[in-house]
Amino acid sequence: MPFDLKEYLKSRQEWCNEYIARYVDMRCDDSFALLRDAMNYSLFAGGKRVRPILAMGACRACGGREKDALPFGVALEMVHTFSLIHDDLPSMDDDDYRRGKPSNHKIYGEAHAILAGDALLAEAFRMLACPDLYPPVTPEAGLEIMREVAEATGVTGMVGGQSLDLISENKPIVEDRLYLMHLCKTARFIACSTVTGAIAAGAEKAKIEAMRQYGLEIGLAFQIVDDCLNAVGDEKVMGKATGSDAERGKATYPALYGVEKSREIARGHVDKAVEALADFADKAEILRAIALYIIERDR
Amino acid sequence: MPFDLKEYLKSRQEWCNEYIARYVDMRCDDSFALLRDAMNYSLFAGGKRVRPILAMGACRACGGREKDALPFGVALEMVHTFSLIHDDLPSMDDDDYRRGKPSNHKIYGEAHAILAGDALLAEAFRMLACPDLYPPVTPEAGLEIMREVAEATGVTGMVGGQSLDLISENKPIVEDRLYLMHLCKTARFIACSTVTGAIAAGAEKAKIEAMRQYGLEIGLAFQIVDDCLNAVGDEKVMGKATGSDAERGKATYPALYGVEKSREIARGHVDKAVEALADFADKAEILRAIALYIIERDR
Repeated sequence: MPFDLKEYLKSRQEWCNEYIARYVDMRCDDSFALLRDAMNYSLFAGGKRVRPILAMGACRACGGREKDALPFGVALEMVHTFSLIHDDLPSMDDDDYRRGKPSNHKIYGEAHAILAGDALLAEAFRMLACPDLYPPVTPEAGLEIMREVAEATGVTGMVGGQSLDLISENKPIVEDRLYLMHLCKTARFIACSTVTGAIAAGAEKAKIEAMRQYGLEIGLAFQIVDDCLNAVGDEKVMGKATGSDAERGKATYPALYGVEKSREIARGHVDKAVEALADFADKAEILRAIALYIIERDR
Repeated sequence: MPFDLKEYLKSRQEWCNEYIARYVDMRCDDSFALLRDAMNYSLFAGGKRVRPILAMGACRACGGREKDALPFGVALEMVHTFSLIHDDLPSMDDDDYRRGKPSNHKIYGEAHAILAGDALLAEAFRMLACPDLYPPVTPEAGLEIMREVAEATGVTGMVGGQSLDLISENKPIVEDRLYLMHLCKTARFIACSTVTGAIAAGAEKAKIEAMRQYGLEIGLAFQIVDDCLNAVGDEKVMGKATGSDAERGKATYPALYGVEKSREIARGHVDKAVEALADFADKAEILRAIALYIIERDR
């Protein structure tokens, strides 16, 4: 039977959804109902759970059990959700819709959108430190994962990337800076997902670094495809307005190279990602399929 | 020679300031100049470094070396600074001044104020996971500290407390909720500071819990005194507008009990805090002095 990526993704999305729902419920009693609702609204707004699925896929590729990487992956999904909520705020990208639904602040107001993001970030680190995750993962490996997640989130990660994004608006696009922005904003956090999975599997250094390489390459491809979809995608399929990057004078690959050339660059990154998986043979089947899916997606 | 709290605090504040400056500099190259400046602006806006000093004091009381708790304490100061920046935002408490200086968003704009807060939170967790802190602290203890910090920050901590604060505005004050709000917003994070110091010292469970008790009590006292100062303090000494809580219909102890009765409640908490230190003899001298300082301060 050939490998069915769609079925696989669906089943792993369900694992994630169950874990997230149980965790939020456990942490928020009714005193925090509004904050809980604001968190849940964005956590269950149709996310594809790409980051936890990558963490589990990398764990499997490195000889570990997928479920050992699940809580770590879910923590990454919480951090990712934090970044989406804050990025959409009026003072940031001012996006009213995400995945076809009103943005968090359109429903819960700016204050609670900011707080929901803050809570998701703090709770993600709490999850990473939960004692029932150790063993099978060693405490040393836990601290290593924590550091990877923090670096891919803070100044050298999504937050720093968002800062670069904002200060680049309506300025001439410099290729080096655009690359750094994509690295910080997207690629390092995607790489952090696969690295986390590898560390959770107890992988040796070389394998962890191969997983980082794979993650960085698909992360760069992912962001370029995202920018292309913003430029020429179908609003109905995307569930949000397209053309907003150009309107805001955002620094993007399509703005610098045009859509065709940008897609070609993205394909180059996917090829490199697949090369990084050479030593993992059949065990990396899922990661290979995901790399191809990234380039072919229409939303 | 009697113990000179003022001199002691000054010397420990210098330890903290040096550590913070070095860390931010190490993490932010010039590509992130604006984000770095926004972080540094609030990190060096006159904070008294209460939380790291409490962590070091608790570490010493439990037989550890103060410097072993310094990086953990500095991480707490970064989380505290994150919460101040976000609390001041227009959609939250809308405070234009803090400690006599314009709030972060008045200088760097809302977007970068939000990002500076986000970066400080993520970078604090990175600091807690730095390998050069382990040993002397064990990785297990590191994860325990991480969990304490995350819980005192997220839903059951400062973020949840700020949510309760906002939804309580202009509503009848209910004593239970006010207590829960102070617990989340202030006391748990202060307690987290002393607990962190105790864990860093390798203290046994009973000592850790005594440090938690001390921290909770001075934390509750601290917040009540804060509310009293907002109600009747001297604006010139405080460096910010007073009377703003009453204007915004905030739930506070003075609003519920009046200033005199509130100060009495605060004194009760300080007494309990000092009781919790009974088994630590001379080693807790600093913590005793800090407990008394909290009730006597005028800003």
